[in-house]
Order: sequence, then C-alpha cells, then structure tokens
Amino acid sequence: MEIIKGGVTAASGFKAAGAYAGFKKLKDNQFKEEINDMAMVVSDKPCNIAGTFTTNVVKAAPVQWDMDVVYNNKVAKAVVVNSGIANAATGAEGMKACDDTAKIVADAFGIDKKEVLIGSTGVIGYEIPMEKIDKGVGLLKEKLSDTIEAGTIASKAIMTTDTVNKEVAVKVIIDGKEVTIGGMCKGSGMIHPNMCTMLCYITTDANITSEMLQKALSSVVPDTFNMVSVDGDTSTNDTVLVLANGEAGNKAIDSENDDYKTFAEALLYVCTEFSKKMAGDGEGATALFEVTVKGAKSKDEAKVLAKSVVSSSLVKAMIYGHDANSGRILCALGYSGVKFDPEKVDLFFESKVGKIQIAKDGKVLSIDEDFATKILSEEAVTAICDMKMGEAEATAWGCDLTYDYVKINGDYRS
Amino acid sequence: MEIIKGGVTAASGFKAAGAYAGFKKLKDNQFKEEINDMAMVVSDKPCNIAGTFTTNVVKAAPVQWDMDVVYNNKVAKAVVVNSGIANAATGAEGMKACDDTAKIVADAFGIDKKEVLIGSTGVIGYEIPMEKIDKGVGLLKEKLSDTIEAGTIASKAIMTTDTVNKEVAVKVIIDGKEVTIGGMCKGSGMIHPNMCTMLCYITTDANITSEMLQKALSSVVPDTFNMVSVDGDTSTNDTVLVLANGEAGNKAIDSENDDYKTFAEALLYVCTEFSKKMAGDGEGATALFEVTVKGAKSKDEAKVLAKSVVSSSLVKAMIYGHDANSGRILCALGYSGVKFDPEKVDLFFESKVGKIQIAKDGKVLSIDEDFATKILSEEAVTAICDMKMGEAEATAWGCDLTYDYVKINGDYRS
Repeated sequence: MEIIKGGVTAASGFKAAGAYAGFKKLKDNQFKEEINDMAMVVSDKPCNIAGTFTTNVVKAAPVQWDMDVVYNNKVAKAVVVNSGIANAATGAEGMKACDDTAKIVADAFGIDKKEVLIGSTGVIGYEIPMEKIDKGVGLLKEKLSDTIEAGTIASKAIMTTDTVNKEVAVKVIIDGKEVTIGGMCKGSGMIHPNMCTMLCYITTDANITSEMLQKALSSVVPDTFNMVSVDGDTSTNDTVLVLANGEAGNKAIDSENDDYKTFAEALLYVCTEFSKKMAGDGEGATALFEVTVKGAKSKDEAKVLAKSVVSSSLVKAMIYGHDANSGRILCALGYSGVKFDPEKVDLFFESKVGKIQIAKDGKVLSIDEDFATKILSEEAVTAICDMKMGEAEATAWGCDLTYDYVKINGDYRS
Repeated sequence: MEIIKGGVTAASGFKAAGAYAGFKKLKDNQFKEEINDMAMVVSDKPCNIAGTFTTNVVKAAPVQWDMDVVYNNKVAKAVVVNSGIANAATGAEGMKACDDTAKIVADAFGIDKKEVLIGSTGVIGYEIPMEKIDKGVGLLKEKLSDTIEAGTIASKAIMTTDTVNKEVAVKVIIDGKEVTIGGMCKGSGMIHPNMCTMLCYITTDANITSEMLQKALSSVVPDTFNMVSVDGDTSTNDTVLVLANGEAGNKAIDSENDDYKTFAEALLYVCTEFSKKMAGDGEGATALFEVTVKGAKSKDEAKVLAKSVVSSSLVKAMIYGHDANSGRILCALGYSGVKFDPEKVDLFFESKVGKIQIAKDGKVLSIDEDFATKILSEEAVTAICDMKMGEAEATAWGCDLTYDYVKINGDYRS
C-alpha cells in the first residue's frame, strides 16, 4: 500500500468542485472562495455504493434520502453537499428539499434523481433555501475537475467548525491493477460513537460489487469512526459513503478473497486516518487524545473501556491541563459498566517524547511530574490501560476539552 | 411538613463540628477557618443507619469501609470526613488508613471502631496523612456542638470545588411527635447518575428500624441523586448516609405504614433539594438546568431521555450561551437509546420569566429569539420534552457547561 496525495479525485474517473452558494455568512475580511459551502463529487461511470449512517433516532432528511439510495438504488453517480444548514428536524419540507435538490442535480447531468446522494451539515431546524442549491449546483457544474486541487477545494467546502480540511488517499495493487482509494471528511463537534456530524465521502476506482463494498465498509466502521468521541453527542446527519466506479479494471471483487482483503485493509487505513484527523480537530481541541485498552477479556469490553476514558469530561479537561491525574482514568474505567479487578490495572501515558507509568496494580504511582507534563504537552497523547484480565485490545480517539469548545458551542448559531 | 433552618444538627441528639487539619493548602489571604477540611457528626445515642454508595467498580477505601459498617454493623455513632484527599486508588494502605481513622475516633469517644463512618473527597491516588487525621479529630472533638451554626460549619468543611455549602432540614409530625430530618451535602464536579463525588450526610431523630430506613433511602435515591449530572463522570467516593437516633420518641417505624410514608416523603423532599443544590452548583456552572420529560412510554424511558438531554455537552454549552437551539435537544433525545417517534416531539423552555414552545411535532419552530434568550438567562432553566407516546414522566438536574468548568478541571491538583 502506498500513501499518495489527494482525496476524492485521486481515483480515476472522479471529478469534484467546491462553490459558495450563500449558506454560510461572510464575515469581515472573508472572501467567498475561503468559505465555499457547497461541494460536489461526480463519477463519469455509474458507481456501486455503500454507506453507514447515524444511529440517532432523529435522522436528518438527507440521511433518510441517502439510506434509500444506498439500500434500494445501489448505484449512484453524484454526491452534492451543503454546509451551513443540516436539514434536520425539518419534517416533510426537509424530505421535499432533498427530492428537489436531487432533481436539480439530475437535470444538470442528465442522470436519474435516485443516482444523486445528498449531504447536509450545520444548524438543525432550518429549511434549505432551494434557490441557493439551484445557484450552487450551477456553479459546481462549471467548476468540476479531476485534479487533486479540485478534491481539496471540495474537502474545504464541507467544513463547518473544522479548522483543517481532511483528505486521505492510498494506492494498492489488486489483480495486477493499480487501485486507488481516496476521500474527504469533515468532523469536529458532536462527534461520538455511531456516526456523528461527520460526513465522509470515499471514492475508489476499484471494481467491486455493492455487496462486498458494503461488507468492507461495515467491517471497518466499528473500529474506526465509531471509536471516535469529541463530545459524546451523536448527530442527526452522520454519513459515510463509498463510491466505486470500477475504472481500475481489476477483476470484480465479488467474494471475501485475497483481493477483498487487500481492498478492506486499504479502506481500514483510510478510515483510521480520518478518525484520527477528526478526533484531533474536535471543536476547540489542542491535542489528539488516543486511549488504548489492552488485556481486556473481550474486544467489546476493551472498546467500552476505551470509549469511557476517551469520553470523560474530567479526563479530557486534564489532558488540556497537561496534568497526569491517573485517578480520573481509573475512575472512568470504573464507571464504564465493564467489570474488572481495580487492583490489577496498570496505566501509562505516551507521546513522541516518551512513556511513563502512572499507576500499577490500581495504585497511583509517585511520578516525575515534569516529565509527565512534557509527555502530555505534545499534539498527540496516548493513554494506555492494561487491565491484565485477558488478551483483547481496542483503541479510541478523542481530544482535550478546552475553553474554545465552550466558546464555539455556547453560541454556534450566531 | 415544615421547612426549617439548619442541617445535620437540626435533629435532636446530634452534634457537629468543622476544623482545619491541613488537607487543603492555604492560599494567600485565606484563614484556616475559611477552609476547614475535616468535619464530624456525632450522636449521643447509637443510630440505625442506611446508605447508598457509588456504582463505580473502583470504590475508594472509605466507601468500602462504610459499606461494611452499613451492611454488617447496622449501627453507628459518628461520622468523620476529610476533604482534600479522596483515599481512592490507594490499595491496602487506603484500607489501613480507614481502620486507623476509625480507631482514633473510637478511642476519642469510647465507642467501637465499627460505629465510625468515614468520608473522603478530593484528589485520587494520594495516601491519607494519619498525623493530620489525628490532629483533626482532636480539634473536632473540642468543637463539637449541637447548635445550628455547628452544622453549618461542618457543611462548609466538606466542600471541595463547591461554591456554597448545602444544608436542608424539615420537620414532620409522626405518631404525634415532632420528627426532624436534616443534612449536609457536597457535590460539584464528577457528578453523574449513581452517586458521584457526592457526599451527603442526613441525620434524623426519627425512631425507625435500619431495614425501613434503608428502604426509604433506596426508594428516594433513584429519583433524586441518581438524576443529577454535572459532567457525566461517576466518582469513586459517592456516599449517602442516613443516621436515625430515635430521640423523637415516636413508635418505631417497622413497616410500610402511614408513618413510614410521612417519613419517606420528607426524605424525598430533602434529597430533591440536595439534588437541585448540587446540580446548580456544578463546577463552573452559572445555571441550574432542569429537564422534564413527559408523555414517555415508561418511567425508565423518561429517565433515560431526561438524563441524555441534561448530560449533553452541546446542550449544556447552549444553556451557557443562552441560545435556544432546539435541534440539540432533539438530537440528544435521539441518541439516548430510547425509541420514539421524532415527528411527535414537542419542546419548551421555561424559567421564572416565562415559557416558550421551541419545537412542535419534531419540527423546530421560528421563535421570538429575544424572549427565548431572556428565559434562558435565568439562574434556573427548565427544558420540557413532551414525547406524546404515553403517560410517564421524569426530571433530571444538571448545569451549563462553562469556561470555568474547563479551568477548574484542567488543573485541579495544583
């Protein structure tokens, strides 16, 4: 596997664009180009598709639309995304807005409206102004390009409170052909298990059936996106979509053979990178906080323990304060719901400057506080919890809790 | 029921005291009297006792000690509390510290060490310096008094990041006798369902068996303390204890008769008041945030829904920002795990200046934003969620998420 430059346009046969349609308010000294608020990805050929969606009972209209396309139509050619308005809690009008949006895109490209996937992110409860979609789609169609830059522009257009755009691309050899998987993703606030104001669009030129594509995505999501927690809230709009147009020309992957495994491994890498990028760019975050639980009795218990620690407000605030208070980690393990022997647990902190043990057999150790602070001051910090109960392991990703998180979320709509 | 002044010394036959033993560091311009860090409650007569304790797998040594006293000894005469060090994650040394503490108190009062209940709150992982306990118990013994003021001093001595001390007392007539229930409580950070860095000591002169006292407490806690959430973390030290010395002289309450009901109702009031006081004084909080869920299919579902909303970081940050973003409440209901019809939900905000509907049938309403901001700017704000699915109802209490929460918890140990 080779890590390459690019995102949604890295694979053959995909074009992308970003444009400003007026969903986001322009602030002083801001140019439209800087805050594009619509993005589009279009494939020359029809794509097999797969998707995973928010588990929230309240599902935004575009999520409902995409679920229908993925589960029933199984083929798509275009993705259109607006950032600024989530089109959630909008009732029948919200569904109509999706239908109208799909029609506008379908008419512009001479395709079926059921081949159009729709993404929305932003404030809940406001209706989509259709004249902005109409204008945006016109602009996007003009700008579509298969260059790496066009993919980058699209990845910036889907950002809301994200501070950096997020792109990943890799190349693997399958059946003697070069296969590329690339994508773009937006994350930030409201990110917790089970898909959350996270939009992720992955494109590939692999030749793979819808069934195997869905199998690969469904196997990867529980260990990647679902192990990310920014603030414990699961949004109404989370969506991961993969589009495969087959242009690489490999023999179709239609079973769990070696080609499938190569593809699934590459997809796992892409989704893991996106998970880390999202966690590290959580609202107001200054650090990526990784929690690895080792020695658990089962994978499921390891996951629950890791997520309990990575989601704890007290632990997150402590990471921000660069304070190695191991009691808070023990405490978060303790209320996770998983049974373990508190007098067995070993705890460590690690970052690129070194590693330190902070608890042994459930007892907090006297440590070199200066060294611990140095470790915790890095941009990526890992807590390692060894439960010494078994062999299972899991990793969760989150971020620190900062003043800026409160600032961003105290007044998000204005 | 009459609400009266006072706390742990309101009921007959209880003395209390607070003293400075050196657990908390003195800051500039601080006098020892202002930051007492040990408290004591002593009953002239042996008390029947009841308790509920943290559900955290990691239980601090004093919690393990108290569980043994409550479940096995069933009688106690003294409570001793230190604030500053939690005596959690301290292994065998932690248990020995409890034994030594109990011995010191037992020797001072000529009682059995198993009649001594112990509370600790503060930083996890540090050992209790026994010379401070020794000194503290000596000071406390000298200061013990049955005045209202002594109860207040004790209630201040158990505070950590609390900004105000918390006392409640009521008087009821049982079997023609005046029965008093009073108590003190500390809460603030790390407060979530199921008992959390919350210490609550309730004294009563009621004549009631240990069995009925435990029944009354166990019936009240799920609807009061367990419905409080400050930051989602459940601490290692949470403890609620009730001591009943029988000095009121009523016929012993030994079954679920009318006297029991009168007593349990008064206890419910006391615990509800403590829950509100703790939630409103959450770390850094500027407002008490109350969430009432109506029209749920069952009481359990109503509780889960109410707690999901009151615990949401995004909702809590929005309360701080005085921003009526009903989408975030819908979202938090949606990921609670409870199934409901999103297109039925009605949402309201209410405070003492008025009430406003912000969503109807799952759709966000256009509202008078100025009026909504006015409602949300009060010190106590209620969100009402009508699920329109059934008849069940529940209330949860929390607070807003503020810059100060992050500040307090980013650097708690220093």
